[in-house]
Amino acid sequence: MSLLVAVTWETQPWIERFTRHLPGREIVVLGEDFDRSKIRYVATWGPKPGSLDDLPNLEAIFSLGAGVDHLMGYPDLPDAPIVRVAQDDLTHRMSEYVVMHCLMYLRDHARFAAAQRARRWEQDRSPPIAADVRVGIMGFGVLGQDAALKLKMMGFDVAGWSRTPKNVEGFKVYSGESGLDEFLACTDILVSLIPLTPDTRGILNRSLFQKLAQDGRLGGPVLINAGRGGLQVEADILACLDDGTLKAATLDVFEKEPLPEDSALWTNPRVTITPHNAAASEPEATVRYIANQIRRHEAGEPFENLVDRVRGY
Amino acid sequence: MSLLVAVTWETQPWIERFTRHLPGREIVVLGEDFDRSKIRYVATWGPKPGSLDDLPNLEAIFSLGAGVDHLMGYPDLPDAPIVRVAQDDLTHRMSEYVVMHCLMYLRDHARFAAAQRARRWEQDRSPPIAADVRVGIMGFGVLGQDAALKLKMMGFDVAGWSRTPKNVEGFKVYSGESGLDEFLACTDILVSLIPLTPDTRGILNRSLFQKLAQDGRLGGPVLINAGRGGLQVEADILACLDDGTLKAATLDVFEKEPLPEDSALWTNPRVTITPHNAAASEPEATVRYIANQIRRHEAGEPFENLVDRVRGY
Repeated sequence: MSLLVAVTWETQPWIERFTRHLPGREIVVLGEDFDRSKIRYVATWGPKPGSLDDLPNLEAIFSLGAGVDHLMGYPDLPDAPIVRVAQDDLTHRMSEYVVMHCLMYLRDHARFAAAQRARRWEQDRSPPIAADVRVGIMGFGVLGQDAALKLKMMGFDVAGWSRTPKNVEGFKVYSGESGLDEFLACTDILVSLIPLTPDTRGILNRSLFQKLAQDGRLGGPVLINAGRGGLQVEADILACLDDGTLKAATLDVFEKEPLPEDSALWTNPRVTITPHNAAASEPEATVRYIANQIRRHEAGEPFENLVDRVRGY
Repeated sequence: MSLLVAVTWETQPWIERFTRHLPGREIVVLGEDFDRSKIRYVATWGPKPGSLDDLPNLEAIFSLGAGVDHLMGYPDLPDAPIVRVAQDDLTHRMSEYVVMHCLMYLRDHARFAAAQRARRWEQDRSPPIAADVRVGIMGFGVLGQDAALKLKMMGFDVAGWSRTPKNVEGFKVYSGESGLDEFLACTDILVSLIPLTPDTRGILNRSLFQKLAQDGRLGGPVLINAGRGGLQVEADILACLDDGTLKAATLDVFEKEPLPEDSALWTNPRVTITPHNAAASEPEATVRYIANQIRRHEAGEPFENLVDRVRGY
């Protein structure tokens, strides 16, 4: 009847939360002694290899974040259902991030911030309106669709791309390899929200950036990556910013996190960096979600948001 | 049958646009010779005293911007109807501005921008969600209500204040002198969109700032003034930022514009300055609107968005 909390973070706050939301259960953490045969659930993020071995009665693995790529790379992952944590809060936070940064590009915020530093009252050129700017959202799941709705409501011209075909009312959704080029060709701001899988690793590279629209109102295509750092090739981003293939980039995620102090991304004036905080899972809401799923499961209902291990998300 | 363009800007682009949208009419500008008795319409912004005298057959005055305060201070303004230009584009631009700056405060953008300049990967504290942040919109007309809807859709807790009582579905709208204190007491981000009148001049001052909520999630109240510079007392804003009465301010408008190079606002790290570009009238849309109003009027229909001279807007 135990739940194992297997995290690389400080464990005490998690034990406190799980104890509160699942009263009467034994909550154990890696490193202490416990009876492995009693573990029915694991709540985890980035466990060391071997940590999840030998759990014969495991009924579910919960990922303590939106993505599950950290689990997919795990050797001998136990053969139990993997449940992704879907949180409205996380979705809303991500949409805030995407809408804010799209608006900052639309309104050329960097230019006016620089003008302020120089005490310069800039004459406004004829700025584009939101309807003139095409935002392409790569990854059109729960996060992508929520961001799309909010961007559309702000007036942007929004389309989506998804690995598999999707019908979403109010949006043109391109799909598959074959739809990708067409999608990119009419995208001024590319918002990456795709999961990291072996297929998508390094997909945000020069060859993709070269396919983005070059006739847009922002003076060049812009990348916003709020997905995973492994999606992007940072050397290509820097080179494409230098040669004008990209006009600017907003990055919340990096090949290596924390972003090393000597990365050239920090000081590139065309790069906006945030410390992987676009949509952090809110621990309280995460634990509440997991406790609910456990109660559903024990009442005979299926888990929600199960991960497809073949697809990788 | 003439239209007089009375602006302090370069006139040629306006003549070109009016000629295109009102073919067959005589378009004249200040400074050239024309028969004043033939002027039926004036399209104007900031004309010099005397410019609009002696126009015996004037049927309407069109203000080439959202506000009409520049006309209200005009001595001997001809006694013709004043038509305010209402443009969806302008409304949408204003909402972009308000939503973007509210999101930047919600997400503490200034902190992460400073961290980037220092090449520092900041640990995120537990950030507030939008529902934790109360945005109070002072001035709940067309602009205020559009911004309110969009802020609400982004998750913010939004209320309005209006000079006269208003029922707007989905929003608590405080009103009048008596409702102002209560409104301010539950406002974390004050968005000023009120018109400038003798009653509102200097209303954004220390005494008002002191009434804002001090128990909010942003660590102190924030002012966003995208209305008119005459609403604000800049010395009070600076002093209130210094002593913590205000946490930050985003100002698009100023007592004197362009903002003088020696203003302490430029370099205050808690101040974000934009050069009165929150929602510039888009000239093409403005002229289209005026041409439509003239056609309506000549077809016997009433002008829309007439200004109440007593109220001042």
